[in-house]
Amino acid sequence: MRPNRLRELWRTGGAAVNGWLAIPNSFSAETMAHQGWDSLTIDLQHGMVDYATMVPMLQAISTTPTVPVVRVPWLEAGILMKVLDAGAYGVICPMVNTREDAQRLVAYTHYAPRGTRSFGPVRASLYGGPDYAAHANDTIVTFAMIETAAALDHLDDILSVEGLDAIYVGPSDLSLALGCRPVFDDVDPKAAEAIDHILARAKHHGVVAGIHNGTTEAALARIAKGFQFVTVGSDARLMAAGARQVVDRMQAGLGR
Amino acid sequence: MRPNRLRELWRTGGAAVNGWLAIPNSFSAETMAHQGWDSLTIDLQHGMVDYATMVPMLQAISTTPTVPVVRVPWLEAGILMKVLDAGAYGVICPMVNTREDAQRLVAYTHYAPRGTRSFGPVRASLYGGPDYAAHANDTIVTFAMIETAAALDHLDDILSVEGLDAIYVGPSDLSLALGCRPVFDDVDPKAAEAIDHILARAKHHGVVAGIHNGTTEAALARIAKGFQFVTVGSDARLMAAGARQVVDRMQAGLGR
Amino acid sequence: MRPNRLRELWRTGGAAVNGWLAIPNSFSAETMAHQGWDSLTIDLQHGMVDYATMVPMLQAISTTPTVPVVRVPWLEAGILMKVLDAGAYGVICPMVNTREDAQRLVAYTHYAPRGTRSFGPVRASLYGGPDYAAHANDTIVTFAMIETAAALDHLDDILSVEGLDAIYVGPSDLSLALGCRPVFDDVDPKAAEAIDHILARAKHHGVVAGIHNGTTEAALARIAKGFQFVTVGSDARLMAAGARQVVDRMQAGLGR
Amino acid sequence: MRPNRLRELWRTGGAAVNGWLAIPNSFSAETMAHQGWDSLTIDLQHGMVDYATMVPMLQAISTTPTVPVVRVPWLEAGILMKVLDAGAYGVICPMVNTREDAQRLVAYTHYAPRGTRSFGPVRASLYGGPDYAAHANDTIVTFAMIETAAALDHLDDILSVEGLDAIYVGPSDLSLALGCRPVFDDVDPKAAEAIDHILARAKHHGVVAGIHNGTTEAALARIAKGFQFVTVGSDARLMAAGARQVVDRMQAGLGR
Amino acid sequence: MRPNRLRELWRTGGAAVNGWLAIPNSFSAETMAHQGWDSLTIDLQHGMVDYATMVPMLQAISTTPTVPVVRVPWLEAGILMKVLDAGAYGVICPMVNTREDAQRLVAYTHYAPRGTRSFGPVRASLYGGPDYAAHANDTIVTFAMIETAAALDHLDDILSVEGLDAIYVGPSDLSLALGCRPVFDDVDPKAAEAIDHILARAKHHGVVAGIHNGTTEAALARIAKGFQFVTVGSDARLMAAGARQVVDRMQAGLGR
Amino acid sequence: MRPNRLRELWRTGGAAVNGWLAIPNSFSAETMAHQGWDSLTIDLQHGMVDYATMVPMLQAISTTPTVPVVRVPWLEAGILMKVLDAGAYGVICPMVNTREDAQRLVAYTHYAPRGTRSFGPVRASLYGGPDYAAHANDTIVTFAMIETAAALDHLDDILSVEGLDAIYVGPSDLSLALGCRPVFDDVDPKAAEAIDHILARAKHHGVVAGIHNGTTEAALARIAKGFQFVTVGSDARLMAAGARQVVDRMQAGLGR
Repeated sequence: MRPNRLRELWRTGGAAVNGWLAIPNSFSAETMAHQGWDSLTIDLQHGMVDYATMVPMLQAISTTPTVPVVRVPWLEAGILMKVLDAGAYGVICPMVNTREDAQRLVAYTHYAPRGTRSFGPVRASLYGGPDYAAHANDTIVTFAMIETAAALDHLDDILSVEGLDAIYVGPSDLSLALGCRPVFDDVDPKAAEAIDHILARAKHHGVVAGIHNGTTEAALARIAKGFQFVTVGSDARLMAAGARQVVDRMQAGLGR
Repeated sequence: MRPNRLRELWRTGGAAVNGWLAIPNSFSAETMAHQGWDSLTIDLQHGMVDYATMVPMLQAISTTPTVPVVRVPWLEAGILMKVLDAGAYGVICPMVNTREDAQRLVAYTHYAPRGTRSFGPVRASLYGGPDYAAHANDTIVTFAMIETAAALDHLDDILSVEGLDAIYVGPSDLSLALGCRPVFDDVDPKAAEAIDHILARAKHHGVVAGIHNGTTEAALARIAKGFQFVTVGSDARLMAAGARQVVDRMQAGLGR
Repeated sequence: MRPNRLRELWRTGGAAVNGWLAIPNSFSAETMAHQGWDSLTIDLQHGMVDYATMVPMLQAISTTPTVPVVRVPWLEAGILMKVLDAGAYGVICPMVNTREDAQRLVAYTHYAPRGTRSFGPVRASLYGGPDYAAHANDTIVTFAMIETAAALDHLDDILSVEGLDAIYVGPSDLSLALGCRPVFDDVDPKAAEAIDHILARAKHHGVVAGIHNGTTEAALARIAKGFQFVTVGSDARLMAAGARQVVDRMQAGLGR
Repeated sequence: MRPNRLRELWRTGGAAVNGWLAIPNSFSAETMAHQGWDSLTIDLQHGMVDYATMVPMLQAISTTPTVPVVRVPWLEAGILMKVLDAGAYGVICPMVNTREDAQRLVAYTHYAPRGTRSFGPVRASLYGGPDYAAHANDTIVTFAMIETAAALDHLDDILSVEGLDAIYVGPSDLSLALGCRPVFDDVDPKAAEAIDHILARAKHHGVVAGIHNGTTEAALARIAKGFQFVTVGSDARLMAAGARQVVDRMQAGLGR
Repeated sequence: MRPNRLRELWRTGGAAVNGWLAIPNSFSAETMAHQGWDSLTIDLQHGMVDYATMVPMLQAISTTPTVPVVRVPWLEAGILMKVLDAGAYGVICPMVNTREDAQRLVAYTHYAPRGTRSFGPVRASLYGGPDYAAHANDTIVTFAMIETAAALDHLDDILSVEGLDAIYVGPSDLSLALGCRPVFDDVDPKAAEAIDHILARAKHHGVVAGIHNGTTEAALARIAKGFQFVTVGSDARLMAAGARQVVDRMQAGLGR
Repeated sequence: MRPNRLRELWRTGGAAVNGWLAIPNSFSAETMAHQGWDSLTIDLQHGMVDYATMVPMLQAISTTPTVPVVRVPWLEAGILMKVLDAGAYGVICPMVNTREDAQRLVAYTHYAPRGTRSFGPVRASLYGGPDYAAHANDTIVTFAMIETAAALDHLDDILSVEGLDAIYVGPSDLSLALGCRPVFDDVDPKAAEAIDHILARAKHHGVVAGIHNGTTEAALARIAKGFQFVTVGSDARLMAAGARQVVDRMQAGLGR
């Protein structure tokens, strides 16, 4: 089975630089996949993407060595299994709040005896190889998002679930949940403290910690702290920021 | 009928700042349309877009005051009329090389008696208004691309065709045609001279001149020379450039 | 944030005339949006529409002042949050049967502290404005459908859930649930009584009442009774009825 | 090969009642196909439809006995052959202006020795049957649109082209071409005269005459005159008219 | 209402030969539908298909007498009701593990009073007929998949749920669940025994038994044992096997 | 620039085994691309594929070393340039009948000074590499189809056009054109003679000869004669043949 570069990076203590895809299109995905990201996450939760569009996006990413990851809309068995069958090498699940949530996540994403994932890796075996079934459990990466007050309350319960490879922090949702401003990088102290706490507990449990960032500065600082999977920006944000800059410069140049 | 802001800008000697869409998706189009461009051109020639995807992209642009323009793949009656029926307020036609080409272009894009455009503005009348038929000929803008050696040979013949509102220079194709490097901004002297010549003749004939640029600097310089419609970058290029910058900074920060 | 015209109408005691979209296409949606409806509901439950097609339909509606509403297939967090992120200004949720159902519905559709909606209004902030996060909770409208025997049993429990703005009656499902014929307007007495009861209790709790109708006569009569959100027909039904009338007249005229 | 009901109707002097599809969707097409039309024409010219969407629309029509017809965007070999390979049993070609145009149309739509249609009826043989190749030339119906001044000038030249089965009049384009108002039914005298002339010459040459109408009254009157293929309305127009009527009645009832 | 050929076959003790669709396309579906299968199952679980693509696939199947069946991704009310509204005449639900699961499945797929299916057979009544509502409960077929250890534990509880028409065995998932190799036909003894047991109990409860097979030999052998619904291969597998055979022969012939 | 394996095979006198894609879907394309073909041709002429669907199919093929080829619907500049910009490494153009046709084909598919291809390899440079512009003219392969009586008349004129890399014989169209039965392999003597003649003249001019086949036997025999590019079957035909075989065996086994 094709190895998962995320696991290889993590094994040596390295951190993965992850890009984010909110635009539901395979050409923009392929363009992003050629920019050198370690992995790209197709966002089926807040991105404008659904399953049908995700498939050619996964194919587009598969033309490069970039690792394909998918964030699902919710902790729901149907979609989790579908994105894996389509060839995702990592899944990020939002709002994992309890030990039971984490157990269901692990069950849905692993074949028996480790879980209850149904068997039918129709595209996954094209991408991963004919021995996919034998190695998928140890190759695919499962992330639980820690982004609510409930999740903080059950943090150790969640982190100690066997088979959970990683957690992913959504700073804006976590901030909202704690009554702070919903931002990515410059979070309020209460949120900052929670993030540090999550990271520390993840380290303690041997679970990889990932986080969403708005800037490279924040991402690098967080890697320095111990995060091993950092997202910066997204296709749509990068495009909009670039466009805004062009328009602003033109307006200024034209004295409008 | 909804007025065409391009004509309004030009009437007072102003220049329009145009964005470019190569990604075949209505969400990226809508995101671009919110960044303040005067107009956005959906590229059915070199962009990855075809008619069916263009329709929701036009709808997305129609949620803002940005003027929707379409570049067609070729001087072909069927697609020219279809993009107008779909509500484009401007069309850019590649490789107009002779007076006859320009006459066909004008004929296909105007109703009788000015041309032979077939009647059926199915979406155009939703966007333009119920009086579309009466005013379309004077509202829509038609651009002929000047980008070949043949076009240079027949420049005055082309520019003097009645009903041709504007020309659009493709610097890379023009450069290739003249044996120069295919670039947007820093063109070889021979190409630069040709561009100046085209601009001068367009001015002489009272035809608006537009041009593709790679940077805001080039675009502003060209406006200063007299161009009144300048494109800078594209959705895909802006996105890729932003992504590349993030990845480069991360690689540098990580010492890779 | 762009205000919600439904709330404005209701504030002054007015009623909204709502159209219904079952055809999964953005051109038919845009055509409908130009006919003067106060709001249009994209039906992801019984309509042939899913998330991916809904997005350009929302964009099409956004070219007009018509308020975009979406009926989701089921009370499921993933899809509820996705339709809101895509810019729906109202959501209708089928088969809300208990107080707990209504509480989950309100939680999924509101940001903390009022609920647990995850943060990422990717298209919603294009449509609503950059201050979307601050005002969404007070702008978006949440409808619970009352259409089962269980819902009748728990009517006051449901109606008293804080944050539930409105209810929506599906007369055919409600009729079926009560052992009556599944019709929209001329419902059996038992169903008629139930509808009156629902309206009265909604009024009592200060919750807006909406209902599906087959004809304008029924809709006007129901507004007269106190309903403030009435649907009449649907894109597909109106088209089919018009077509059938044409064919019938032609057959008659041709003596077939 | 499945027979063509249009030919059967015409053989006995009957007229076909044709519906029109401008909405690019297979569900609206299937709904229309269940309303009793003799044939349905998918409009790739002024409708919002392209080849890719046309395919499932043809499949949707194929669930009923309604004859599938396609209007192509232009007299272009590629698209004419593609719509036939996809299973259209009739093609309408816009703006056939000369004998040479008509000859090319016939050539592109018939196999050798009658024409130069390329062989590959990939879906057509599913719909028509395994003996499609042997009978297609005598089963499919080819319409040339007569709608320009040039076409009037070359009317007999066009009508006498062997293999041209039918002509189709676009009253609004014909009116525009003659300097009249672009309407369907109540055309200006000059256009009315031209229409009568076209019908008379078609009859003389044994070519079936078809025409676009806005109302059943006009369609019936034209059948009475001798037209044997009449279109009334379209999916989008019927839907919009129905919606407008509902909204108008609601507004009136609400005293707005 | 159009009768369900599956029920007709079963009534006389016959077995249905079922094809399988994993390719998300209506042309491949129509091609498959012309090969003589009694029924075709569109696989929304492990196939690459989602709701939006399923709709034209159902339309494609509806051009033939083949019975359209859909496997849903999971036991979830929203999608179960949507596939029925779209005209599926059979639904297969994965991983039905308990009596409560089976009861929910039956409830979601039947109208009151037998269940809680919401009313709105938008396309289903085009396919089934205007009297769909009256007969759907007795026409549509509901399959529960038996493929886990839990399901084996609760087998009689599941099989005795009123309204469950059939069960469907997934040999590879069942094998995995029992610690055996995930294969279709030549299953390990423990799995073989379980399959025989499931068949016997289904017979006892008067529930039709179906099963997935890799070869016609296995399928025929299982029919001989009493299975009445057998799947062999899938569109993608048949295509890949045919292609591999061609390539192998060419390689051999070329001495590569 | 990524080298073109077709050229590498031909350089050493080898023959390429080509697969054919008529199903408009990227998953079936990816499945085919994993079966070991040297190249895969996406058929935009008789296949059910158009530009928009072709793009993800090209991406799917790009996940493997298989060379992506596209057959365009017709000799039309717009679509020829679009398929190249999308990353096709070979184009097959139907019905090239004259020297002028062949010259236009070469012009449209090569950059200046060899031709007039417009510059904008948006996806092609992702697939081919950043130096695409410099090497495309020598890397991409252009095939002219020889399949009409006219082409036979102008055979040497066509074959001597500089820049034409290969010809492709469509045996069924060629047969039709010569009054023979439209078959792939066992063609009538007159067609067989014509094919031999084409091959001989192509060899004489140093132009590679390719041909469509129905069976591996025919393909191998033709390679033995000197053809260097042979197609066998297609995705849809292989799938249908496999399905028909399963159904036939089941019917036989069931004694139907």
